[in-house]
Amino acid sequence: MEQILLGKPVAKQLDKNSELLINAYKDKKGVQPLLTAITVGENPASLLYVSRKQDKAKELGVDFNWLKLPNDSTPIEVLEQIEATKKISQGIIVQLPLPVHLDFEEIVNLIPPELDVDGLTTHNLGYLYSKNYKILPATSLAVLELIKYYDIKTEDKNIVIAGRSRLVSSPLSKLLSSKQFNGNVTVVHSKTSDLKSYTQQADILISAIGKSRLFNIDYLKKGSVAIDIGISNVDNKNYGDINPKGLEEHLIARSPFPGGVGPITVSALFANLAQLIK
Amino acid sequence: MEQILLGKPVAKQLDKNSELLINAYKDKKGVQPLLTAITVGENPASLLYVSRKQDKAKELGVDFNWLKLPNDSTPIEVLEQIEATKKISQGIIVQLPLPVHLDFEEIVNLIPPELDVDGLTTHNLGYLYSKNYKILPATSLAVLELIKYYDIKTEDKNIVIAGRSRLVSSPLSKLLSSKQFNGNVTVVHSKTSDLKSYTQQADILISAIGKSRLFNIDYLKKGSVAIDIGISNVDNKNYGDINPKGLEEHLIARSPFPGGVGPITVSALFANLAQLIK
Repeated sequence: MEQILLGKPVAKQLDKNSELLINAYKDKKGVQPLLTAITVGENPASLLYVSRKQDKAKELGVDFNWLKLPNDSTPIEVLEQIEATKKISQGIIVQLPLPVHLDFEEIVNLIPPELDVDGLTTHNLGYLYSKNYKILPATSLAVLELIKYYDIKTEDKNIVIAGRSRLVSSPLSKLLSSKQFNGNVTVVHSKTSDLKSYTQQADILISAIGKSRLFNIDYLKKGSVAIDIGISNVDNKNYGDINPKGLEEHLIARSPFPGGVGPITVSALFANLAQLIK
Repeated sequence: MEQILLGKPVAKQLDKNSELLINAYKDKKGVQPLLTAITVGENPASLLYVSRKQDKAKELGVDFNWLKLPNDSTPIEVLEQIEATKKISQGIIVQLPLPVHLDFEEIVNLIPPELDVDGLTTHNLGYLYSKNYKILPATSLAVLELIKYYDIKTEDKNIVIAGRSRLVSSPLSKLLSSKQFNGNVTVVHSKTSDLKSYTQQADILISAIGKSRLFNIDYLKKGSVAIDIGISNVDNKNYGDINPKGLEEHLIARSPFPGGVGPITVSALFANLAQLIK
């Protein structure tokens, strides 16, 4: 019977650690740390994500500064906001998705690396090549925390990661291959014609492709672990990348969608903030 | 019959391109570009590598400024040298290996990214996560140039990279997996117990492990390509990672050791310099 790897207890444990560090900061500085979130325009997904972060900030004792910029803001206007708040903020995020006229990479690199709680600036991504990395991209961190919490062994395992995004899968493949996790990591992607030939060998499959229920039982090795971090919308319903049908007796563990990695991501962001103010 | 992928013609083509850009710089600025190389101590390998770079500089019309620092130099003393020369240099390298008391990562990050012709600063490694990367680590670039020169197809191929170093294999795995090359890349390493189960599937095996002739015919898929970038010393003789015995009729192509990627690396460094002064 597969174990269902729920995100909530992982998030709870992360929050507990973050609270200790946040309280220590408060005791030392006499004020709560401040997280600044910038949204550009009125994208409903962006507003929803930020409101969740706002709720978590309140819960953990972090002041939250939500800067809502107009949809037609230029990079220079975003920079002006960052410059105006960076001295009073302990962390800054720019929420995705951005309006199409703004290049995410250009915008995120306006954030000083030492305030980059999302871990997505070029500078902080470069630290993934270091033994001494400080801040991991928040969603990658969420996956790693899930793996650690449920004591999933990665050393010498065949790990297949479907996807190669800057935000999640690419940093994750680097980290799982590092000396900390020692996985034998394969990255497959949209140009991989024979996905099965890779996924059927995987002791751990991590999918971040965003294709509704692409990976069914035929793709998955008996006795393996599957971690679903994809999300796609079909007929106004959201789906993960993994089709759970028949997996109960096939996998040993699976992080489901929803309820798996998702609930950990916001907590991972605050775990990064807690690291930065330590 | 396997094709032997020699490095020399690749290096020659790179040099030709670099010369055009270097000459354009000279015509515009009235002076030759200046490359500063820093060595710390008297490590014979370091001195040998730098003298090769010095020869190439002369050949390509680049002024060469070799700063020889004493073995007991501190990071601050290295920084002082970099600060003193950065305004007059178009590129700076710190030659490896360094004395053990110096941390390579700390030292290389003293180089301003826009002068980092080795492509090894944290900032430039972070750019590997970007679509707009400028400077690639020189040895990774050498391998990619070899692949391009000999028109080795990478898209949708099973590519196994043995090794995960900051200097070569780790950046290379990121790049070969990117949209430019679209390989299905697996990274194996010293903790991989069953190397064969990966390498025997590889359409392209790239080895940078540094274990003398580890990969013999039993590890290699019939009709595949092998690229040898390992180097190890046994009884005062240097060896690559691939044992060429019997490969003539087994592989379709192989970059040998010596004479494969090695001769391209110095040219790749100057190709980076040429990009930076463009």
